[in-house]
Parts: sequence; structure tokens; C-alpha cells
Amino acid sequence: MKEQPLILVTNDDGIFAPGIRTLVEEMKPFGRVLVVAPDKPQSAMGHAITIHSFLRLQSVHLMDGVEAWSCTGTPVDCVKLAIYKLLGGNKPDLLVSGVNHGANISINVLYSGTMSAAVEGAMENIPSIGFSLMDHSIEADFSQVRPVIRSVVGNVLNDGLTPGSCLNVNVPKANGEPLKGLRVCRQAKANWEDEFETRLDPGNKEYYWLRGEFRSEDQGEDTDVWAVDHHYVSIVPTQFDMTAHHAIAHLNTWDHALG
Amino acid sequence: MKEQPLILVTNDDGIFAPGIRTLVEEMKPFGRVLVVAPDKPQSAMGHAITIHSFLRLQSVHLMDGVEAWSCTGTPVDCVKLAIYKLLGGNKPDLLVSGVNHGANISINVLYSGTMSAAVEGAMENIPSIGFSLMDHSIEADFSQVRPVIRSVVGNVLNDGLTPGSCLNVNVPKANGEPLKGLRVCRQAKANWEDEFETRLDPGNKEYYWLRGEFRSEDQGEDTDVWAVDHHYVSIVPTQFDMTAHHAIAHLNTWDHALG
Repeated sequence: MKEQPLILVTNDDGIFAPGIRTLVEEMKPFGRVLVVAPDKPQSAMGHAITIHSFLRLQSVHLMDGVEAWSCTGTPVDCVKLAIYKLLGGNKPDLLVSGVNHGANISINVLYSGTMSAAVEGAMENIPSIGFSLMDHSIEADFSQVRPVIRSVVGNVLNDGLTPGSCLNVNVPKANGEPLKGLRVCRQAKANWEDEFETRLDPGNKEYYWLRGEFRSEDQGEDTDVWAVDHHYVSIVPTQFDMTAHHAIAHLNTWDHALG
Repeated sequence: MKEQPLILVTNDDGIFAPGIRTLVEEMKPFGRVLVVAPDKPQSAMGHAITIHSFLRLQSVHLMDGVEAWSCTGTPVDCVKLAIYKLLGGNKPDLLVSGVNHGANISINVLYSGTMSAAVEGAMENIPSIGFSLMDHSIEADFSQVRPVIRSVVGNVLNDGLTPGSCLNVNVPKANGEPLKGLRVCRQAKANWEDEFETRLDPGNKEYYWLRGEFRSEDQGEDTDVWAVDHHYVSIVPTQFDMTAHHAIAHLNTWDHALG
């Protein structure tokens, strides 16, 4: 651990969201902080990057003593611009993303811009953590997230992470009870039962709003869903190797010649 | 296998790209085909979905005997609209995405809209396959992809896929030599060395274009990069469980109490 680590902070709710302010405040004692975050909400942008258009950066004042830039792109664009434009190809010592306004448990890791930024950090070999509070409200109470951030960041800076992985940290919504602690988990098997609400515009043309209900029937007590349901903070080590290694043997039973 | 399977076709290059036309033509003998694809290019949109705006569908004529809709959203939006709007919650028997104009090997699976649509299919428990041709040209020659599609789709319809996984199929660019066959692989460890080209707009304000160079130093002969470099078709079984299971033990050595 260097004396003064460089910490890159991003999110997907936009640079002026309360969640990122909480995260920046907690990072300042740990090192030099560089913030590059979207100029507008970019939730559910997944691992999208901007290739058909250009990007811009705008210097903004977020808080004293912190260099901060708003970016016209996605969370993953922010990570790329931070490293390859602002830092000239040098990597920060730590990347933290969030604190997201809303849960990123289970399969939501795939949709989440917050977590995709952390996964991009892992791809760049940077120790990376995504933090989410399971409360969508813009006025959510982030106070119980603060000790979680300090604990997890302290551990990562001292101890590092397994190469190829980052962390997906979800903090339950405040309910008056103290959090029970951190719990290392696997991503629960779950799904979205989606629905589209159909409306008619003033010209009588249909349009559709996505609505979904998150369903987990995974009974495992080693999952992130179980952990947050029991008022633990869930920590899922998350990797960018998406290979289904266990499926390779079956596919090798196929005829591999081409007719 | 039902007499007449229902096959959902999507892509990320847009509904009028030559690649999806190739795929639809090859699917017609296998069953009833439903096409729902973006109305404009959506490359590198990853697993993004549209939650801050609404979606529209427009019926289009792609070819005779095929129901086709263009969608204002991302590739994953197309999958959700197909299932939850057009099919009333019923699942197709097969989902195919592509044929992408360009490679989706290695870590590009995370950025790819083509593959994210297939991953969404796997999340819906639908046997799903993403096809990519390693040739970005809009006039690319898709003829050598056709026997690959027939072989892989035939196997999947007859034999199924391991639950929780889909297939990432990459076909090398035509070079005059016949393809050597199919090769089941893991996703290569690789990275993008990115760069941003800085330009000045007419008002002298900077803007940035992402340019990157794909680098793989993974020497394994079991990777997708090795396979396509040696003129094999790579098939990587791809899963949506992003848990780094091997990293859990290390994280359990941390103190899990919160101060």
C-alpha cells in the first residue's frame, strides 16, 4: 500500500447524486481522490460503451480538495476516460463505484452500471468495489453505509483482491436494527418477471414502459439475497470470465466437423 | 424438440443489417421465426436496458413468411419485449442473436449487445446462441457462416444446453481456406489498450473518440482467441453467474464485524 493511494470514484446515478458524495467523503481520508462520473443518470446501462459518438468531460466542483469531472457517457466510459485520458494510461490504486441508489444483488450485477464500472476496473487489473444501498430514494439514509465502506476499503487496500475479480457490496435498507456484519456470498439464482405497461400517446400510438418483479427461488443460505434479507451486508466476488467451464465437456460430445 | 419450434431472432447491428438477414434465412427451415431487433445500430450496448424512457415497436417487412418488429431500445430490451409483450410471457424454444458484423471473442462478450441478448435468453432459461463474423464490413461475406449456423442450431435443438449457459460463436473472416471445424473454448484473458483521440469542435471545445487495441497475451490453446487465429470456429459456453467462486475463501479470512 502506497502512502497516498490514488482512488478513482464513479457511479451510475450521476455525479450530483447523494450516494457518490457519501463515497467521496469516505474516500478522502484514504488517499487522493479523482471523480469521473456521468453527467446524468445511467442506471441499467450495463457494460455499455460509447463507440458511435464522441465523449466530453467537464470539470465540476463536487467538494473541496477533490478533482471531479462529469462525463457525457456511461459508467464504463467514465472508467476508460479516467485511465486513458486524465491519467495518461496510469492506473489508480483503487476504483470504487456508487454508492448506488438501489440494490444490485443477484443477476442485477449484469444490468448495473455501478457494477459494470467495477468490472471494467477488474479488467484493468485495478482492485475495484461497487457499493449499493438497497433504497432507491434520492433522500435515502446513507449513514449505515459509511462503516461498511471503511471496513471493505480498508481490507482491500491492505490485502488486495484475487486477480480477475472485483467486489459487489450490497447494504440493506436501514430498519432501525444494526447491521449484523459482512457476509461473503455467491450471486443468487433469480429472475425478473417482466411486464410492459402499454400506453397510448396523444396520436393514439402505443408505447411501452418496462416494469418487472424480481423473484428469487434460490434457497441457499450462501447467497446475496439471503444475506440482505437477514440484514447482513452481502459481498459477492465478481469476475469478468463468463465462461461456463462446467458446460465444456458436454459441448465436446458434439460432432465438430462442418458439413 | 417440437415439430415447429418458435425461434426468436435479434441482433445489435439493427434490423436491416445483412447479418441478421443471413440468420433469419437459415432459421426459416428450423421453425417459426419471430424477429425483434433494434431500429438502429446498438453495438457495444452490453446488457443495457431502457428504464428512464419508454419503448416502441414497429412492424416491418424483412422477408416473406417472417414476423418482424423493429424496436427503439437495446438488444436486451428486444428480448424482453418479444417475450413479455409480443409472446405474452411465453418463451421461444430458441433464441439466436447476430450474425454480428465483427468479433465478440474474449472479454468483448461483456461489451457486446449481440451476446448480451443471448445472455438474457439464458437468464430466461431459453437455449440461446450469439453468432459473430470477424469482419466489420457491411459488405462482409456471410457464406461461410451459414454451415456453422446450421450445425450449431441443429445440435442445440436436438441436444439442449447446460442450464444457465448460452453459446458465444465466433466465425473467422473468410481467407480462401475452408474453416477447420468447431472448437469448444474458454474466454481468453485479454484486454483493451484504449486511447482517446482528442479533437476540437468549431467552438474550440475538446471532445474525445474512443479507439482501442485488443491485446491477448493468453497463450492457452483452449481459448477463443487461439481458435479463431487458427481458422477454427470458436464456441464458448457463457454463463450469467459472475460469482468468482474461487475468491470466496480469501474474503472469508477478513474480519466480518462492523466497527
